[in-house]
Amino acid sequence: MAGCCAVLAAFLFEYDTPRIVLIRSRKVGLMNRAVQLLILAYVIGWVFVWEKGYQEMDSVVSSVTTKAKGVTLTNTSQLGYRIWDVADYVIPAQEENSIFIMTNLIVTMNQTQGLCPEFPDKRSICESDANCTTGSSGTYSSGVSTGRCVPFNKTMKTCEVAAWCPVENDEEVPKPAFLKAAENFTLLVKNNIWYPKFNFSKRNILPNITTTYLKSCTYDAITDPFCPIFRLGKIVEYAGHSFQDMAVEGGIMGIQINWACNLDRAASLCLPKYSFRRLDTRDIDHNVSPGYNFRFAKYYSDPSGAEHRTLIKAYGIRFDIIVFGKAGKFDIIPTMINIGSGLALLGVATVLCDVIVLYCMKKKYYYREKKYKYVEDYEQGLAGEMDQ
Amino acid sequence: MAGCCAVLAAFLFEYDTPRIVLIRSRKVGLMNRAVQLLILAYVIGWVFVWEKGYQEMDSVVSSVTTKAKGVTLTNTSQLGYRIWDVADYVIPAQEENSIFIMTNLIVTMNQTQGLCPEFPDKRSICESDANCTTGSSGTYSSGVSTGRCVPFNKTMKTCEVAAWCPVENDEEVPKPAFLKAAENFTLLVKNNIWYPKFNFSKRNILPNITTTYLKSCTYDAITDPFCPIFRLGKIVEYAGHSFQDMAVEGGIMGIQINWACNLDRAASLCLPKYSFRRLDTRDIDHNVSPGYNFRFAKYYSDPSGAEHRTLIKAYGIRFDIIVFGKAGKFDIIPTMINIGSGLALLGVATVLCDVIVLYCMKKKYYYREKKYKYVEDYEQGLAGEMDQ
Amino acid sequence: MAGCCAVLAAFLFEYDTPRIVLIRSRKVGLMNRAVQLLILAYVIGWVFVWEKGYQEMDSVVSSVTTKAKGVTLTNTSQLGYRIWDVADYVIPAQEENSIFIMTNLIVTMNQTQGLCPEFPDKRSICESDANCTTGSSGTYSSGVSTGRCVPFNKTMKTCEVAAWCPVENDEEVPKPAFLKAAENFTLLVKNNIWYPKFNFSKRNILPNITTTYLKSCTYDAITDPFCPIFRLGKIVEYAGHSFQDMAVEGGIMGIQINWACNLDRAASLCLPKYSFRRLDTRDIDHNVSPGYNFRFAKYYSDPSGAEHRTLIKAYGIRFDIIVFGKAGKFDIIPTMINIGSGLALLGVATVLCDVIVLYCMKKKYYYREKKYKYVEDYEQGLAGEMDQ
Repeated sequence: MAGCCAVLAAFLFEYDTPRIVLIRSRKVGLMNRAVQLLILAYVIGWVFVWEKGYQEMDSVVSSVTTKAKGVTLTNTSQLGYRIWDVADYVIPAQEENSIFIMTNLIVTMNQTQGLCPEFPDKRSICESDANCTTGSSGTYSSGVSTGRCVPFNKTMKTCEVAAWCPVENDEEVPKPAFLKAAENFTLLVKNNIWYPKFNFSKRNILPNITTTYLKSCTYDAITDPFCPIFRLGKIVEYAGHSFQDMAVEGGIMGIQINWACNLDRAASLCLPKYSFRRLDTRDIDHNVSPGYNFRFAKYYSDPSGAEHRTLIKAYGIRFDIIVFGKAGKFDIIPTMINIGSGLALLGVATVLCDVIVLYCMKKKYYYREKKYKYVEDYEQGLAGEMDQ
Repeated sequence: MAGCCAVLAAFLFEYDTPRIVLIRSRKVGLMNRAVQLLILAYVIGWVFVWEKGYQEMDSVVSSVTTKAKGVTLTNTSQLGYRIWDVADYVIPAQEENSIFIMTNLIVTMNQTQGLCPEFPDKRSICESDANCTTGSSGTYSSGVSTGRCVPFNKTMKTCEVAAWCPVENDEEVPKPAFLKAAENFTLLVKNNIWYPKFNFSKRNILPNITTTYLKSCTYDAITDPFCPIFRLGKIVEYAGHSFQDMAVEGGIMGIQINWACNLDRAASLCLPKYSFRRLDTRDIDHNVSPGYNFRFAKYYSDPSGAEHRTLIKAYGIRFDIIVFGKAGKFDIIPTMINIGSGLALLGVATVLCDVIVLYCMKKKYYYREKKYKYVEDYEQGLAGEMDQ
Repeated sequence: MAGCCAVLAAFLFEYDTPRIVLIRSRKVGLMNRAVQLLILAYVIGWVFVWEKGYQEMDSVVSSVTTKAKGVTLTNTSQLGYRIWDVADYVIPAQEENSIFIMTNLIVTMNQTQGLCPEFPDKRSICESDANCTTGSSGTYSSGVSTGRCVPFNKTMKTCEVAAWCPVENDEEVPKPAFLKAAENFTLLVKNNIWYPKFNFSKRNILPNITTTYLKSCTYDAITDPFCPIFRLGKIVEYAGHSFQDMAVEGGIMGIQINWACNLDRAASLCLPKYSFRRLDTRDIDHNVSPGYNFRFAKYYSDPSGAEHRTLIKAYGIRFDIIVFGKAGKFDIIPTMINIGSGLALLGVATVLCDVIVLYCMKKKYYYREKKYKYVEDYEQGLAGEMDQ
């Protein structure tokens, strides 16, 4: 018991510190301090000031709503004069983080269930019934083949299909785009973000923006960088593309909102940064379904109760609102990890200088003698043999 | 060759350890141990126990499905008695991580393409044709102006537009909300999560929940925290808002599911935690399109084949299901990084005590003499000059 | 001033390095080197080679578009022969990261607003008006009860409801699935990813894929791992389920695209890896709304102007495209943190060996004497009392 206490007392009242050789030499001393300075500069300058290694990071949680505005008038032989408003060209009417604006379309009116000749292509053109397989339906066919070869027009015969008739002719995409005026439509993006770890939330409609400003502004990277209303043509232009080109076959535009925030500073300095990128990089080599399109139908019932539909192949631009960003705030853990790692690196200075002093300098034997105390294993010293 | 072997042998059979001064002093010893204890307590207590620095983290991958239930009966002069069920008020019928419940609406029936007077506001009211610009279409107009000034009603004239006629009158939002009974509708949220790094997946319908319970329960933060069926009114209430207020102009509600899991413990302890937040914080100052609404249309064909539509401006609440969370599991890398950093910090104890002992204590010269061995650069010692 | 300069000079021209005992012993030396080697192997082998601790990581930002293809013919007594194409079975027509393919459905045609008997279940079957509560509407009822008990058919009476009449009978799900041929439909998934930190973007349609290949290929894990066209049946099969089973009640399939990239290597080695998982794990115990279904309606107007609708309860498979992955690229910060932590761990070798040498070996007193210099606090040495 008493022995145990003595050991504990010895442990508690002891203080051990390494014994140091202090070499007074201009050359070595300066080198040592220079190396230490370099490492210190790295740790403080790069890790702390530049990369903010003292901050804990959090990723953004976001909610987005969009609202398009604009009307346009078109005039074609098939549809006559026609007005297009939001309810006509936004499909579906609401989505979570994206909005689709129809810019071009192929309409096939008054389709009914029935039998009709397939649209001619190299697979469907036929000479006789022998060319058509009953019941088959290829990836690109509009219906199920009946096995008969029927005239498509005066000069051509194609396989007959059970389908919504007449079948769609989507060979020619209208050019210029049907709703080319969509270039001047506007898009209001409302974005609310949240950093759960720091319980910090903010909107992209900044508190210092007035209602009057919001009613009249449109986003401009230089003059109006915080206006959340975008002219569609400008979005595409900022991404380096031409709206009229893109409108023909459709595409995907990314509206990126970057909320990189330093929450150690005032909340009012945490601002959204908009950027625009085309997401469907077109390769001239890969024109398998280029652009962006999809089909939908409006269903009607005849007075007799039979159903017919208008099939629309909608080409258009889908605007995906991509919200990303990281917020940082001072936290003890990453700070300590970085300080710990920095201190360990400071140790490297001594190791490095030791190597130079003890191995490379002329006076290395002199320094070695000062630094090291050589102890021979006494048994080994006597016998030159492994002990035991 | 033999020399090389000798060097290798010397390297292998050498053991170097720093020489230590062991100072037996109560004051310094206790101080030293106290500082070491503090650093150890920080490393173990804070980094390991509290922040779980020994765990690797992974972010959640999630899939959500929703299903609303409820019917209500309304009675208005415009629509008469009308029943509203799921197919009527959920638009679009299905979405990925969100569901929109219509709570209020402005219906404009029997719109056809044509010419009609614009709805009166300060831009459209006119005295004569001179006030109307042909072909223009402002952000807030319903159609393309024809340039004529026509009577809107007995007392007022507005510019004529080519539009879906008659144009919508959305000046007055019905109050109280048309489908105010939506407060009692229920929402079933099915959520399946996956932590790819740990190949761990789980559902929010917990394995110990019985079918009978599921058929009858509704979520309550205290009594039924794991019931995945929510009463819409309660969701809004938990977020600190009034459902009836919100129903009028619409809004966005976030249903947040937090899957913070410690996978070093049993999988059954990894439980979802629901919280509710209104995502469209309303500013009284910023009433540019407050709440949440969008327009959609139902298209009909007349017996004659002409198309007409019913335009609906739908106000409602979009419920965004936001799934987040991080799972942690023991991993050697973060453990080692934190141990390494902790050890480096322990070194700080020695540095700190050295500073006190060697610079602040009365007996500092005595201790310094013991710790340091001063070595003069012998050339410098002789000549006081910089060596080569 | 001169004193200050002297101190600065002393500081600058000083070089301190710990004094080392160099013990020449085979046993201790070998042990020391072995421990050092182990720690070095861990730091280099595990942290750097295996876990790529020298890389900064970034999470993927992604954009997805999908396109389904396929037609099928069905023949039932209710609907007769009917062709189903993309516009019929994809609902809604476009979504951001998912696509719903209807595989089964319950159609209730010609519903109008009115009064009719509720569909019989244990809540709605009645004997007399006393069993029916006026104005009530339960979670599972189709309408608002009028309080009357009316005959449902010749043998049964149910409570009358104000509803879309006739009410839906969804007791029996068609089996096999109505659109069972959906197994052979194909799905083209176009995915464009971006790593913002490294400004690296790529598509899942790889640059070395030819258009001819794209027109004819279908994904196969072994023969065509980079073909972005999936046969629906195969997706479900890869996830270990039966398409025909799943088609009956619907479900959620996850198409997971993993973009784990090492950006220190060539960009062409950054490839998508597809995997498939069923997201709505079915529990036999929990059959509260199993599978995946939702209701939507097509609205028609009668020649008289009255509205009727066709209600469709759509069962089907929702394909969620889940894109995840992390890219790594060399960065100085994590490298330094790991080196720092590794160096600190190397220090552990000395501590470990010291413990063995100074406490466990027979010659421990001999070694201790060499390593330590004992310094007694001189006052304490004289008086045995605490100083001051």
